[in-house]
Amino acid sequence: MTAVGIDAIEIWTGNLRLDLAETFAPAQDEDPGKYTKGLGLNASSFPDVYEDIVTMGANAAHRLMERKGLTPDDIGRIDVATESAFDNSKPVSTYVAGCLESVYDEDFHHANKGERKFACIAGTQSLDDAYNWIRAGRHRGKKAIVIATDTALYARDDPGEATQGAGAVAMLVDEDPSLVELSTEQGFGSADETDFLKPNQQFPSVDGKRSMKVYLARLREALEDYESQVGGVHPEDFELVPFHTPFPGMVRKAAALGYRHIIRDTDVELTVAEEIGRQPRPEEFKTQEQYFDAVTEYTDALTETERYQAWYADTIEPTLEIAREVGNWYTGSVHVARAAGLRHARRNDRDLDDAKLLLASYGSGAQAEIHHETVVPGWEDEIAELNVDEQLADRYEISFEEYERIHDAHNHDSETDVEELTTPSEEFVFDGWGRMGERKYRYVR
Amino acid sequence: MTAVGIDAIEIWTGNLRLDLAETFAPAQDEDPGKYTKGLGLNASSFPDVYEDIVTMGANAAHRLMERKGLTPDDIGRIDVATESAFDNSKPVSTYVAGCLESVYDEDFHHANKGERKFACIAGTQSLDDAYNWIRAGRHRGKKAIVIATDTALYARDDPGEATQGAGAVAMLVDEDPSLVELSTEQGFGSADETDFLKPNQQFPSVDGKRSMKVYLARLREALEDYESQVGGVHPEDFELVPFHTPFPGMVRKAAALGYRHIIRDTDVELTVAEEIGRQPRPEEFKTQEQYFDAVTEYTDALTETERYQAWYADTIEPTLEIAREVGNWYTGSVHVARAAGLRHARRNDRDLDDAKLLLASYGSGAQAEIHHETVVPGWEDEIAELNVDEQLADRYEISFEEYERIHDAHNHDSETDVEELTTPSEEFVFDGWGRMGERKYRYVR
Repeated sequence: MTAVGIDAIEIWTGNLRLDLAETFAPAQDEDPGKYTKGLGLNASSFPDVYEDIVTMGANAAHRLMERKGLTPDDIGRIDVATESAFDNSKPVSTYVAGCLESVYDEDFHHANKGERKFACIAGTQSLDDAYNWIRAGRHRGKKAIVIATDTALYARDDPGEATQGAGAVAMLVDEDPSLVELSTEQGFGSADETDFLKPNQQFPSVDGKRSMKVYLARLREALEDYESQVGGVHPEDFELVPFHTPFPGMVRKAAALGYRHIIRDTDVELTVAEEIGRQPRPEEFKTQEQYFDAVTEYTDALTETERYQAWYADTIEPTLEIAREVGNWYTGSVHVARAAGLRHARRNDRDLDDAKLLLASYGSGAQAEIHHETVVPGWEDEIAELNVDEQLADRYEISFEEYERIHDAHNHDSETDVEELTTPSEEFVFDGWGRMGERKYRYVR
Repeated sequence: MTAVGIDAIEIWTGNLRLDLAETFAPAQDEDPGKYTKGLGLNASSFPDVYEDIVTMGANAAHRLMERKGLTPDDIGRIDVATESAFDNSKPVSTYVAGCLESVYDEDFHHANKGERKFACIAGTQSLDDAYNWIRAGRHRGKKAIVIATDTALYARDDPGEATQGAGAVAMLVDEDPSLVELSTEQGFGSADETDFLKPNQQFPSVDGKRSMKVYLARLREALEDYESQVGGVHPEDFELVPFHTPFPGMVRKAAALGYRHIIRDTDVELTVAEEIGRQPRPEEFKTQEQYFDAVTEYTDALTETERYQAWYADTIEPTLEIAREVGNWYTGSVHVARAAGLRHARRNDRDLDDAKLLLASYGSGAQAEIHHETVVPGWEDEIAELNVDEQLADRYEISFEEYERIHDAHNHDSETDVEELTTPSEEFVFDGWGRMGERKYRYVR
């Protein structure tokens, strides 16, 4: 069976940077540690007034096409995942294709364009669609571009405000991929949940505590479902475990849960048992409450063990490096985590040829999906092309007063006339409104 | 290769009926013929106050599961296509699953749930996703439920008001299907168009003339792309040609264009040439305008030929029967057309075993998709189960004054307290709002 997977990844970050410790914390009268240590975030990437989900997505896709030497005729499918859409009918992928057509001679008239919505998990669902399309033999030798793009903004003074972010990830899905091969095995954990909603509104209604609980519950279900497909899972099977990262602090909790779950009945449980005992089993307790308390206690002890901390440092910590500097990108988040982990591995000359990654995607509402990917030899050359460090460094540092204005400029309910803070160059920009309320775009040379 | 396709279809119409000739036309001071002859519509199906995209989708899916003797464990995937979503993050499929879980003992926790948006074509795209998922070998022997559900409402006094409709289609996608087998061949015609939008709004902004032009242009492109996959296409290859039907009058135009296109260089062109001459060819004209005028004249003459009219009566007219009584259902429309055509064929004892259908799907924004389906022997028994006639007959006939109140009740921007006009029975209903602005549902026995 021909390998199918991700051939290349590009990341496009919003052009502004809000420092959480230096700028946001003082304005909120908060201890900077609440953000840097509690959430694990140093900064948010923020869109300038000429940026939105279309410009970021089109810019990421454009760089992908240029770098891989592709033209529209090579592409059979453009899928966009977002939960920041500004139209209930016309998909973002048509706008993105329109942007790209303005800089290429060919067009995408025979490419299938789509849009998926399911909170933050739709990026992975779109990746699955592209994979299935190729596996089903419908791709006519063409490739798919999958774009996850979001402006993850919250209402001012919402607890989520500190986790904001904006950016896009574009992935090229193809046969004989250069980066990672996907497989047919997946695990799902999915339930009708009310943890995070956007009912006819731009900014979310969030039940923060419930959302964290649901993330963990669906993740465990998905892991069990995944295990039912591939047999037992051992933590050392995977070199990196990229999670959906609303903020790194959430991944800290999720990783502990996942690790505890998969070491059960393995040599790892026995080894750490010398230090902290075996895991509690439900049958050992009279009430569920007592069992849960014991599990919490065990998990806390587990995260203090050297074994766990070494695993976390190797497989989780590297995946959080970019998230710490950009905040939550919703649909793009888990794909940023994969890129961060691979980038870290390359920088540290880690040999990941044929190594396995375990991806843990999540979307509120709610659904988790677990799948593995196999790293393709030569991956370092592909990852070396990521220019995310330059992009992060090039962002314009905004003051709190600038942040307030820019936030208003992106609020659909407020009429503003805010000047841009940066000068776009070699990128697609928002260019005003058309007569039917459509957004217009142009390429700035 | 195992056959994959649609195993069963269920249709759920809104519980109210607005008569266009008797009720709507007089109130608009219009000639009833504008609607019945011009648009080809007799009535709109309309949702009562307790109905919405979730209740209609869940009711259609529930009937599908009951009729086929399925429980949640049989289902690996629930996909919803809609352009009437009321949340920018949480997908309708989670609400539908929540409804269904309230009437079954099992749950859908390991089923992948999704939502697609691309105007009216997302229903077909979701069908494609389900097909690809099975073909890719990811379904673990389970089936997919694909739901196309919309409340296709327009602002009051918008020209689109007469084409309104509301309803859902649920399709079961499976191996060895009982109704139609799909194939890998497809044709796409897709461009970034501004013909129909819902920019941060519930009711659409429509450029009616442009939308009709774009429908025809994308359809021709898709047909050419489809021909590039399967070779030449002959009108007699297909027993039925279900089109996306915003209103039957649009299909009248589209069918003429499609027929003219596919008879070029066939025996049919030669036969009708005795009566109306051969088709104009671009090289015979000095200007494009002259060519287009000649094509229009030829097409008009073509539609007057007996050959065309017999083809139209056999392959198109039957597909419009339900649309005439319900209006536009957006994502469900082309699937209603397929069901209508098959229902008509069964009623008339037409032998469709192994016959081919050509499906022409379209969504504004814009994209057309052409594919064929092969009717599976035994299809009559499956189609006999449709209870759409009873549903249509059972609708409550609303007065214009009731229509005005009900339209307001479905307007997201208006606060209303409108009483329901009908009494729900054995169906899911909207049951008020939760604390986070989520919509709540219950089953009425």
